[in-house]
Amino acid sequence: MSRNLLTLDLLSPGEIHCLLEEADSYRCGAAFPNLSGKVACNLFFEASTRTQYSFCVAQEKMRMRVVTFHPETSSLCKNESFYDTVKVFDSFRPDALVIRHAENAYYNRLLSYVRAPIVNGGDGTGDHPTQSLIDLLTIHQEFGRLDGLKVTMIGDIRHSRVAHSNYRIMRRFGMDVVTAGPDEYLDTELLTEAVDSAVATSDIVMPLRVQLERHAAKSEISASSYLSRYGITMERIGKMKPGAVLMHPAPFNRDVEIADEVVECERSRIFKQMENGVFIRMAVMRRAVES
Amino acid sequence: MSRNLLTLDLLSPGEIHCLLEEADSYRCGAAFPNLSGKVACNLFFEASTRTQYSFCVAQEKMRMRVVTFHPETSSLCKNESFYDTVKVFDSFRPDALVIRHAENAYYNRLLSYVRAPIVNGGDGTGDHPTQSLIDLLTIHQEFGRLDGLKVTMIGDIRHSRVAHSNYRIMRRFGMDVVTAGPDEYLDTELLTEAVDSAVATSDIVMPLRVQLERHAAKSEISASSYLSRYGITMERIGKMKPGAVLMHPAPFNRDVEIADEVVECERSRIFKQMENGVFIRMAVMRRAVES
Amino acid sequence: MSRNLLTLDLLSPGEIHCLLEEADSYRCGAAFPNLSGKVACNLFFEASTRTQYSFCVAQEKMRMRVVTFHPETSSLCKNESFYDTVKVFDSFRPDALVIRHAENAYYNRLLSYVRAPIVNGGDGTGDHPTQSLIDLLTIHQEFGRLDGLKVTMIGDIRHSRVAHSNYRIMRRFGMDVVTAGPDEYLDTELLTEAVDSAVATSDIVMPLRVQLERHAAKSEISASSYLSRYGITMERIGKMKPGAVLMHPAPFNRDVEIADEVVECERSRIFKQMENGVFIRMAVMRRAVES
Repeated sequence: MSRNLLTLDLLSPGEIHCLLEEADSYRCGAAFPNLSGKVACNLFFEASTRTQYSFCVAQEKMRMRVVTFHPETSSLCKNESFYDTVKVFDSFRPDALVIRHAENAYYNRLLSYVRAPIVNGGDGTGDHPTQSLIDLLTIHQEFGRLDGLKVTMIGDIRHSRVAHSNYRIMRRFGMDVVTAGPDEYLDTELLTEAVDSAVATSDIVMPLRVQLERHAAKSEISASSYLSRYGITMERIGKMKPGAVLMHPAPFNRDVEIADEVVECERSRIFKQMENGVFIRMAVMRRAVES
Repeated sequence: MSRNLLTLDLLSPGEIHCLLEEADSYRCGAAFPNLSGKVACNLFFEASTRTQYSFCVAQEKMRMRVVTFHPETSSLCKNESFYDTVKVFDSFRPDALVIRHAENAYYNRLLSYVRAPIVNGGDGTGDHPTQSLIDLLTIHQEFGRLDGLKVTMIGDIRHSRVAHSNYRIMRRFGMDVVTAGPDEYLDTELLTEAVDSAVATSDIVMPLRVQLERHAAKSEISASSYLSRYGITMERIGKMKPGAVLMHPAPFNRDVEIADEVVECERSRIFKQMENGVFIRMAVMRRAVES
Repeated sequence: MSRNLLTLDLLSPGEIHCLLEEADSYRCGAAFPNLSGKVACNLFFEASTRTQYSFCVAQEKMRMRVVTFHPETSSLCKNESFYDTVKVFDSFRPDALVIRHAENAYYNRLLSYVRAPIVNGGDGTGDHPTQSLIDLLTIHQEFGRLDGLKVTMIGDIRHSRVAHSNYRIMRRFGMDVVTAGPDEYLDTELLTEAVDSAVATSDIVMPLRVQLERHAAKSEISASSYLSRYGITMERIGKMKPGAVLMHPAPFNRDVEIADEVVECERSRIFKQMENGVFIRMAVMRRAVES
């Protein structure tokens, strides 16, 4: 079995279920594995708060030795490449490399040249496997199952690695997955539905962050117009099915894709997702480094 | 008893004395507490050397697991807010959050929403409780008491969190506290005195950093003019009382508020303050995380 | 014996041989020293990947407590000086300070004022002692000896701390050291030779990074012209002596001083140098902190 975690597409349903169960056991109080002496190098070539620091907290809680790469003060400033930077860290013989990079499937360029297991912290618009595991775990905790549930992801689908990653894995687990939002944000290869009907019929409603840094310049849609047309307002919350929940991979734009007062409302599982982040990343790191 | 350390205003004199004694015991060779397994997240939203790294060294010396937030490569770049960033770290279930932020009393916005103890590493122009503890400890080491001593703080009082924090706590402990400096830097709610008479009659003289980044543009006073009118020169050092000492919270501008040759002169306790920084922060972290 | 490591000029051949043997023993599987409880502060005032992070990995693998300074969010932003910043960290009573700074022999300004051992991670264009140890170790592993071997360093000699550091130490160990490259990059105090004759007669060929950030503006030589005239191409690789090897302190500019396909060719020991980096820095840190 490979110790890499590149995309959930390469894991069997059994492997995924094991990871979810392991993560949930940590949440329920199971002793954390003792990985003292193991060295993790965290290489985030893109900005990150949740993913980067929950990996770090997970590693520290399992007593790993954590080395955090800071691109802004590295030899990237001297034009060293992504590939060469990863090779440097691999030459240090770490027990795992956690990598986030803007290029889709960046790992394909590395696999034959890197000895350490690679844990994908997000690649371009391709995959975000640990976020998808978090979402699966949060949904399973809520509903006790995955099969047959309906999820709607709303908003900036095309640029979202979470959208692509979730779409595939959730369908593999028998979920009904649709996307909604402005036409210019949608990915035409994914199923779509109108926002209001999708919200009213879903078990899980998941707005995605509008990547303002890409769109603002064009100002296609103002923030307030986006909120009323596609955003999750208290009014839309009120039209959700009984028992349905709200999730968001975060960071979120308050009062753009999600109304300020919705973030911590009763249906919201947003901060529960973050809590699960540490447990999922513990399971993933344990898998990567344990023989 | 709350484990937060927000402002010394909320601690009893007894609690403060215990912290000072504990810190001093570490300086004198007492074994450091073993806090292994405890996780501290250090969230400095403003630049810092002394405070940030002495917290870090203190935590490491007590075997804590330390997670350091780097705002410049975080989701703050994607417009995530201060509040939401702190909530992310709190969702990781750390044992303490150490926070510095530019907003006065930022912690009031967090208290009902954050589970981890908050240790204030400085808020706006409001408070800097660990620096004040350092100053109290350094003074107590020097004079064996606090009550009845006279302290003069000179310079950029209005913008200084140290000045405000020290002013209140030192008066609570029976010290005579005055401020001096250019009129436009003073805070009219605090007692003031002319620089030379204050220097000549104080047990502790404490120049504060001229926040050049705020004032330079206006160039009200040149550096050399500031030094001769308000700065601590060897001439002013010579006019201090026998046994009186010089302190500075640092960083300092050499040859602006303090002459270059004064920094390490015999009366200076500036680097002793920094040494005490680690011991104070050990006591403060121990208080925050130990049940 | 001083625990500082400032320049190899101050170490005896015996001390250097001991460090090389110690590093090699770690590579061969000897147990790493347990330095738990020891605190290292890493202060890199210039960008670094290899040096900075291999120190960090070495320290972590020996269970040290590692505190990493981040200049960009420190009080350097408030005009605090290099000297004062180092004094701050020294006041924390660490077991060692690892420092890189742009000023040649910066350590001379610190020696009388700093208590902790200083390990030089590179000073200006002067010295890079741990890189030179890496190079000596890599050469010794390859040839079983140093004496009598010929090394050619090619390229941006004048600005290179590695060139100056290697030149002196390799000559002390009986090696024949020459430099080659464009006239305007050479240091007239060092022996020089034409590129092609030097390459054909050397046991070790070591191109150095063209510091494009210094030269690009002047555009004296284009990248492709540099490669054909002074760079290591597969053609030049083919003209090297049997058994001769290629080294590079890195980072490298692919297709400037070294052709892309040469980096990982059979003669290349570039990534072996990086692996040795961790072992050398373990030996160096052990020497700095162990009584």
